[in-house]
Amino acid sequence: MKYLVTGAHGFVGSYLIREILKREPGATIVAVDRHGAGTRLDLLDLDACTALLDSERPDYLIHLASLSSVAASWHDPVASFTNNTNIFLNVLEGVRRSSAKTRVLSVGSSEEYGIVTPDQLPLRETSPLRPASPYAVARVAQEQLGEVYMRGYGLDIVATRSFNHVGAGQTDQFVISALGKQFAELAKGTRDTLSVGTTSVVRDFLDVRDVVAAYCALLARGQRGEVYNVCSGRGVSIADVIAMFETISGVRATVAVDPSRVRPVENAFVVGSNEKITRELGWHPAYSLEESLRSVYEYWYGR
Amino acid sequence: MKYLVTGAHGFVGSYLIREILKREPGATIVAVDRHGAGTRLDLLDLDACTALLDSERPDYLIHLASLSSVAASWHDPVASFTNNTNIFLNVLEGVRRSSAKTRVLSVGSSEEYGIVTPDQLPLRETSPLRPASPYAVARVAQEQLGEVYMRGYGLDIVATRSFNHVGAGQTDQFVISALGKQFAELAKGTRDTLSVGTTSVVRDFLDVRDVVAAYCALLARGQRGEVYNVCSGRGVSIADVIAMFETISGVRATVAVDPSRVRPVENAFVVGSNEKITRELGWHPAYSLEESLRSVYEYWYGR
Repeated sequence: MKYLVTGAHGFVGSYLIREILKREPGATIVAVDRHGAGTRLDLLDLDACTALLDSERPDYLIHLASLSSVAASWHDPVASFTNNTNIFLNVLEGVRRSSAKTRVLSVGSSEEYGIVTPDQLPLRETSPLRPASPYAVARVAQEQLGEVYMRGYGLDIVATRSFNHVGAGQTDQFVISALGKQFAELAKGTRDTLSVGTTSVVRDFLDVRDVVAAYCALLARGQRGEVYNVCSGRGVSIADVIAMFETISGVRATVAVDPSRVRPVENAFVVGSNEKITRELGWHPAYSLEESLRSVYEYWYGR
Repeated sequence: MKYLVTGAHGFVGSYLIREILKREPGATIVAVDRHGAGTRLDLLDLDACTALLDSERPDYLIHLASLSSVAASWHDPVASFTNNTNIFLNVLEGVRRSSAKTRVLSVGSSEEYGIVTPDQLPLRETSPLRPASPYAVARVAQEQLGEVYMRGYGLDIVATRSFNHVGAGQTDQFVISALGKQFAELAKGTRDTLSVGTTSVVRDFLDVRDVVAAYCALLARGQRGEVYNVCSGRGVSIADVIAMFETISGVRATVAVDPSRVRPVENAFVVGSNEKITRELGWHPAYSLEESLRSVYEYWYGR
């Protein structure tokens, strides 16, 4: 089979390509990214997207390309919106114009659910979407465009709402990676205090290796037109993560709140239900959060 | 007061400017459009939007610029999306970057509600949004971006979900104008048959003069962050409209279905409740549908 991966050189892309080749050693991978090796393409260029789909005609397209930082979306909402929604629209339009029989995996975000109260947890695929950041609005629009292309033009699309990822190689724009990096620096003595945002927020963290296993399962057996939470099902506060990093690193951290890490509007609780994907596809998380955090810490410590 | 109107040379813009000047003869109007007299601006140019807001700093901004045809959005979804959502995002970003104390009227659409069954009518502002066309997705994203800018950046935004407009001067891309034009041609003998799409669909039509009166009321007294249906509250089928045009024109039409007028996904019923805007603002429709259709017919007959 031929797989086209957008954002192939990003954090998730490298894990996904390894997972595909593990499952299907003879697979053809078309790795698309703005920079680096492989096929260089700016997905904001609709004609280039169409030409690529027309020439490659992949069996599967996994759309990982994204400016996926919520915090960054508050700093530059226009860049966030265009580099999430508009690039996805161009990808869909490329598939439509090329009439390729491509199955598309539309990777969305738990941020689509927006602000919720604890009694509304865990978040299910049927929960209302109340996006509360520029990034979240972009992801909701992406998902809705997918549904319109599926119903109106007959495209084959499976969508996810993916919760927070954890893993070695993630940039320190994201909270767990930022904490892991700082703990490695604290352990080496190159840093004195742990700089944090709001530590009371609760998130659902999933190891990136479990994320890409879920994506492969969804491509193979997910239902056309359906959306699936990709999550651990477990809520953990940032304060809990800090305590776990303290155990892993053997360092007791002095915490300092950095106002630049605090967002204009913050979701206090984000915990998903993975009941749909586990029931339909038999996928289950294979890594514990402890294992995931250890891999992050070791990644940064070794740099 | 200073009013900046985007899409000022469009169908609604000309009526709105007249309405503003009727209510406030000394008002300053900054008429912005891609072409024609006044301030020429491509709203897809973010820097130009920001510069304009920075220099004009209007009290009110009424965002009418839109590719507002659902049918056209199925033919070119990318153009529809960028010329609805992205232009609005640039307008908001221009207001934010200029720190102008501008009150923004975000004009949305009844299409945001999507496919509904008769038991879900009339559509209220609390009804779920299930956009079913590229245009509808674009309008939902616009509204959600407005909410994010309001909550996250403190902008002053009032939003509408405006239902179908009727009035002299509307292009024949829209159903009532297309029918009025054809009836004028039938009456003059320059046409034999009436070309239609799906005549069973039910819509809520409001005279454009009532629409702009509602917009002025919303600017003056609408609640910040709230969304308001702008509609007649009355559902009428296209078949009913055809019968009314037959009475107005004195012509009995031979109907022919044109497949190009039938859409991939069609909302069968769209009828709104105007209870919120009538209760809060005292606005009421002043024109009957008969008066509106007569104005459309006379417009085309006189051309």
